[in-house]
Amino acid sequence: MQQRLRITVVERDRDRALQVVDALKEAGDYEVSVLGDVTGLARKLAALDPDVVLIDIANPSRDTLEEMALASSPMERAVAMFVDRSDDALTTAAIEAGISAYVVDGLRPERIKPVLDAAIARFKMVSRMRRELEETKAALAERKMVDRAKGLLMAAKGISEGEAYTLLRRAAMDQGKKIGEVAAALVTASELLK
Amino acid sequence: MQQRLRITVVERDRDRALQVVDALKEAGDYEVSVLGDVTGLARKLAALDPDVVLIDIANPSRDTLEEMALASSPMERAVAMFVDRSDDALTTAAIEAGISAYVVDGLRPERIKPVLDAAIARFKMVSRMRRELEETKAALAERKMVDRAKGLLMAAKGISEGEAYTLLRRAAMDQGKKIGEVAAALVTASELLK
Repeated sequence: MQQRLRITVVERDRDRALQVVDALKEAGDYEVSVLGDVTGLARKLAALDPDVVLIDIANPSRDTLEEMALASSPMERAVAMFVDRSDDALTTAAIEAGISAYVVDGLRPERIKPVLDAAIARFKMVSRMRRELEETKAALAERKMVDRAKGLLMAAKGISEGEAYTLLRRAAMDQGKKIGEVAAALVTASELLK
Repeated sequence: MQQRLRITVVERDRDRALQVVDALKEAGDYEVSVLGDVTGLARKLAALDPDVVLIDIANPSRDTLEEMALASSPMERAVAMFVDRSDDALTTAAIEAGISAYVVDGLRPERIKPVLDAAIARFKMVSRMRRELEETKAALAERKMVDRAKGLLMAAKGISEGEAYTLLRRAAMDQGKKIGEVAAALVTASELLK
């Protein structure tokens, strides 16, 4: 069974907050919470830990926009932001801050559900790309580190590349670590001992 | 001086196409073309080669949506799609097909400019991530290839890793190629000669 999606609505205006909550109730079976006061937003959102944050700010300044984007951790969850007015610099800032959906002409109840779907789909796609990038970077860094460690061992012990690799792999197995970690430890140690 | 943004509007309905063109004229200084017939869309768009494609389809099927997304090359340019109705599966399909902006409750002239800005910003962000991913993957692949080529040379000539690397680098310099290319050629040759 799929768990209910947890949505936090960030909305200062109480009437609008109620409208949004009603629209969400009609759109699907969500677990909805509302934050009316944005003081300590990052801490409050960390405590609630929703799947999606839905932010409504009529007319944000660039600072407000970036603060709210940062506070809602757009790398960890989908963030949809509704504003009444914007310009292209502000739009670019919102998207570069990681906002999954940035909707310019205001929050209308009938538009919440499609924007929510788009925000979640966008968030998943970007997360997948980001994860792939991190894994590839980590693999490249590990390979470089193992190469450096092999070089150190070959020079220090006058052994071949194959022998150096075998030594590293054996140490990793003995210590229950990854070969990259053992290599990194060796490189660090050799720099300290220089 | 910045060049004018070139926008191609894909719209079968002639009246709506005129509305969109008018709205674009008001929104900024764009070079606008219109495609009313979607037959051969990919070829026509390749010939026009716009910066942004703006597609309006009232009620797409999943097949139509994916065909139009594919035809508009969303990896090479920003694509904004306006539909009247959608569901979450269709929304996910659009975003996974690479559409930069997917707007569900229809094309309204006053909304074109902000959606265009968002689509361009989104496209740039995703392109940057994709490019970084490709570069990192290429660097990792090159490193693996150079390692394999070094191993082949060390075994064939009974030389050290350092000597094998020097040989590869010298061959690359002599031939005006990258070391990864020389390594790949060596690996291929050795497989053919096996």
